[in-house]
Amino acid sequence: MKILNYGIIMNVTIWNEYHPSSKSGRVYKTYPDGIHVALNQIFEGNEELYNVTLVTQDEPENGLTDLVLNGTDVLIWWGHIWQDNVLSSVADKVCKRVLDGMGAIFLNSAYGSKPFVKLMGTSCKAKWRETDEKERLWVVDPSHPILSGIPETFIIEPETMIGEVFDIPTPDELLLLGWFPGGEVIRAGCTFKRGRGKIFYFQPGHETCPTYYNKNVKQIILNAVAWANPVGTVAVENYITHEKDMPAEPVEVVKKSKLKSFFRR
Amino acid sequence: MKILNYGIIMNVTIWNEYHPSSKSGRVYKTYPDGIHVALNQIFEGNEELYNVTLVTQDEPENGLTDLVLNGTDVLIWWGHIWQDNVLSSVADKVCKRVLDGMGAIFLNSAYGSKPFVKLMGTSCKAKWRETDEKERLWVVDPSHPILSGIPETFIIEPETMIGEVFDIPTPDELLLLGWFPGGEVIRAGCTFKRGRGKIFYFQPGHETCPTYYNKNVKQIILNAVAWANPVGTVAVENYITHEKDMPAEPVEVVKKSKLKSFFRR
Amino acid sequence: MKILNYGIIMNVTIWNEYHPSSKSGRVYKTYPDGIHVALNQIFEGNEELYNVTLVTQDEPENGLTDLVLNGTDVLIWWGHIWQDNVLSSVADKVCKRVLDGMGAIFLNSAYGSKPFVKLMGTSCKAKWRETDEKERLWVVDPSHPILSGIPETFIIEPETMIGEVFDIPTPDELLLLGWFPGGEVIRAGCTFKRGRGKIFYFQPGHETCPTYYNKNVKQIILNAVAWANPVGTVAVENYITHEKDMPAEPVEVVKKSKLKSFFRR
Amino acid sequence: MKILNYGIIMNVTIWNEYHPSSKSGRVYKTYPDGIHVALNQIFEGNEELYNVTLVTQDEPENGLTDLVLNGTDVLIWWGHIWQDNVLSSVADKVCKRVLDGMGAIFLNSAYGSKPFVKLMGTSCKAKWRETDEKERLWVVDPSHPILSGIPETFIIEPETMIGEVFDIPTPDELLLLGWFPGGEVIRAGCTFKRGRGKIFYFQPGHETCPTYYNKNVKQIILNAVAWANPVGTVAVENYITHEKDMPAEPVEVVKKSKLKSFFRR
Repeated sequence: MKILNYGIIMNVTIWNEYHPSSKSGRVYKTYPDGIHVALNQIFEGNEELYNVTLVTQDEPENGLTDLVLNGTDVLIWWGHIWQDNVLSSVADKVCKRVLDGMGAIFLNSAYGSKPFVKLMGTSCKAKWRETDEKERLWVVDPSHPILSGIPETFIIEPETMIGEVFDIPTPDELLLLGWFPGGEVIRAGCTFKRGRGKIFYFQPGHETCPTYYNKNVKQIILNAVAWANPVGTVAVENYITHEKDMPAEPVEVVKKSKLKSFFRR
Repeated sequence: MKILNYGIIMNVTIWNEYHPSSKSGRVYKTYPDGIHVALNQIFEGNEELYNVTLVTQDEPENGLTDLVLNGTDVLIWWGHIWQDNVLSSVADKVCKRVLDGMGAIFLNSAYGSKPFVKLMGTSCKAKWRETDEKERLWVVDPSHPILSGIPETFIIEPETMIGEVFDIPTPDELLLLGWFPGGEVIRAGCTFKRGRGKIFYFQPGHETCPTYYNKNVKQIILNAVAWANPVGTVAVENYITHEKDMPAEPVEVVKKSKLKSFFRR
Repeated sequence: MKILNYGIIMNVTIWNEYHPSSKSGRVYKTYPDGIHVALNQIFEGNEELYNVTLVTQDEPENGLTDLVLNGTDVLIWWGHIWQDNVLSSVADKVCKRVLDGMGAIFLNSAYGSKPFVKLMGTSCKAKWRETDEKERLWVVDPSHPILSGIPETFIIEPETMIGEVFDIPTPDELLLLGWFPGGEVIRAGCTFKRGRGKIFYFQPGHETCPTYYNKNVKQIILNAVAWANPVGTVAVENYITHEKDMPAEPVEVVKKSKLKSFFRR
Repeated sequence: MKILNYGIIMNVTIWNEYHPSSKSGRVYKTYPDGIHVALNQIFEGNEELYNVTLVTQDEPENGLTDLVLNGTDVLIWWGHIWQDNVLSSVADKVCKRVLDGMGAIFLNSAYGSKPFVKLMGTSCKAKWRETDEKERLWVVDPSHPILSGIPETFIIEPETMIGEVFDIPTPDELLLLGWFPGGEVIRAGCTFKRGRGKIFYFQPGHETCPTYYNKNVKQIILNAVAWANPVGTVAVENYITHEKDMPAEPVEVVKKSKLKSFFRR
């Protein structure tokens, strides 16, 4: 029989808005080649298992052509100030792919991205304060595979604050809570299922902070990719089925003779 | 009927697509004045508690002007074949109002309505078979207020089949399961929270079936209106707060004196 | 204060371990007549709606005779150091009553009480630090009736720390998150359903802190009592039913003749 | 970095009450060597990945010595009429091991077993009817790894009825719904987390029915074992930490320099 995730090769696409403004100043100092390149390092040493594609917002179709999207098992999305300019047609295609089974990991400010907001159905707004502070994360779902190898608590410093009240639907699973010295808390690691696709939102990772070089953060993202991998997902086709297409059981039931005998009881 | 939240006057708006095709034939025989008028009977005898407004899709702005929407505590929505023609601008306003606290009850085929689909973020498709069968409902959340006064199981006959796989997000609460003789099941009563608004989806009620005259169905809808009533909801304003607006806490935390005493323990 | 479910008279029993050690020193200064008497003040002014009984651990059967338990709609439990001495037979009866529909509100250190631990099925252990700090609470479920009238955030000072990792099952609903200056967070307001009974765990309220005089805390407990009130709960009797006792539908199905016709399809 | 479930060897223990009465008659005809031996066939062909131990209730300590339990990653439990005779001390040790991370899969009538009931905190009673019928299962969580490779619906025939109202806590995840011709439904596949352990309840599998030879049933149980595998679980030790043991965070937070820079923004 099939063994879960036994050497499965996953096609991962890392999307970064990579705005020109991030190619200088503090963001550049932190991520000289862009956050997408830093995230790519998570998969180093496992090239035989992960086929990673890097795309950025200023490419045609925001880098997410049908060829790229249809070949993606798990999409990692980092965006912030510029992501409102993502084409709605592209955002719609991303959502469609998630409903069809593509995994999606939304990082940090991506809680405000068009695909995430559309998949959630809420405003996805949160409180925030942009200054160097620190964040302390706490595990509240210790047996979740996304937290495999993660200590019960760890600190990310510096990090900027994103806090409650965070306007998301109740997560299917709450994995991590974040604490900030300014008095705020956040549901920092949340899973959601939409259609046949799995979604993980992970709050840390402001563009001016070296968060994506953090060992625990890298492990969480790597675990999340394995968790969100759609390989093996149940094929649920033709959600709308007309009578004639229904499986044997109902067809038999509704045959006039059968129905008669059925109603006779 | 027993009223929960006794003493709170609620503004309820009942929306029905009320397509001309429903003004003749079997639908007419079942609901001569329209499903909205049948649903209005649920509130009879409690006029002092419920201020009910009836609107239909063919009215200007689909009957949901700002005046109507902003004055609605709980919206009951019944639609089917015609509801794709609801104006997107109206659907967007309904969703906005739900996020701001308006309760919403979506009945039967309204799982495919523009506002419900947008609030869920999924396709909301299901299997269905249009033929007179019966449905048996089972309570799986016996202490939920929406099920107050409902027996653990009851039958609706005739009813048409809407079955799994039903492409909705995991409900916040699963209240009722539906059984059909053809071999299907359905999550027939589900609650969802979006923003500050509460949503209840209730599957029974095909236009050709006298479901909305059923005592248990009427009680469930009446209970759901009380449950979804936003009166008393926490006012969560200004989801995005800029630094200067943040509460005093961060400052207090770091007051030297406090910290000293904090050390001293 | 605003009363939900106005017009329903509820029988509330407040249980306090009220250990002799709490009748002197700082606990005495904070709650001279005991925490149970302070909690009773929550219902002042609504005597016509609430029939409140106060009991303490050193009474016969720990104050929870069948007469008291069977007459209780909602039980409020405060206990700490001494609660391990509660009779197991009494703890079992409390659990049985909850499964039969009695509401239960467990406060602060009562996360370690025999009935709570038994109802949860986990160790219910948490981190803690006993020193005067403060707690900041954040609403994460703004439309929940237990949070009716509560601001999105408020501070309790002084309060002692109870923090994650808190070994409870995933709550049915997460209402409040708590923040502590020491770097900890806690799921501070959680609901659970067990059988036909509703359970609310609320973390603030260490015996040396005047938490139960706090306006928001009092409102939350008052709301929780209304929420947990079993009046109107579905009567789900005879969970185990033998064939002959099954409702009409199955009996018909299994009649030999019917089964024949059934299998013939 | 670590790859999830990449060739991990799992220690699986299959527990069967294997009552003498099952060694003759219809149960014997269905499972001549016992249900535990039939379940063991699920792992055939993957001996390099699974180290399977078979134990039965009539062995000393019900077959669950410390040596066996402490060496078990995932426990599969099948029991029915005789399981009330399991030693309470053994049931307690099983629960303790689950809270410490051992996975547990409870099959069919094991919903009434001492460890399951204790871990749930409810009566775990359900309706049932012992007669050859059939069960139709429906997938309601299509992206769950336990359902990998399973069609959206499949039939088990013959099977006996276990139906709602099923007195369990709200499952963390609802994977499968069961349909019976007699008019009943059941939450047939449910996951629960308790402590650091994962629990899967799967309803099909009456001792007189050849359910455990069913291809889909075997795949679901194999998937569940991989899902429940505790390898990689976060080590959450010392749930109770005294002040002196608390992490350094509080001190760091209040370093004057940090705080100044905190003010300066």
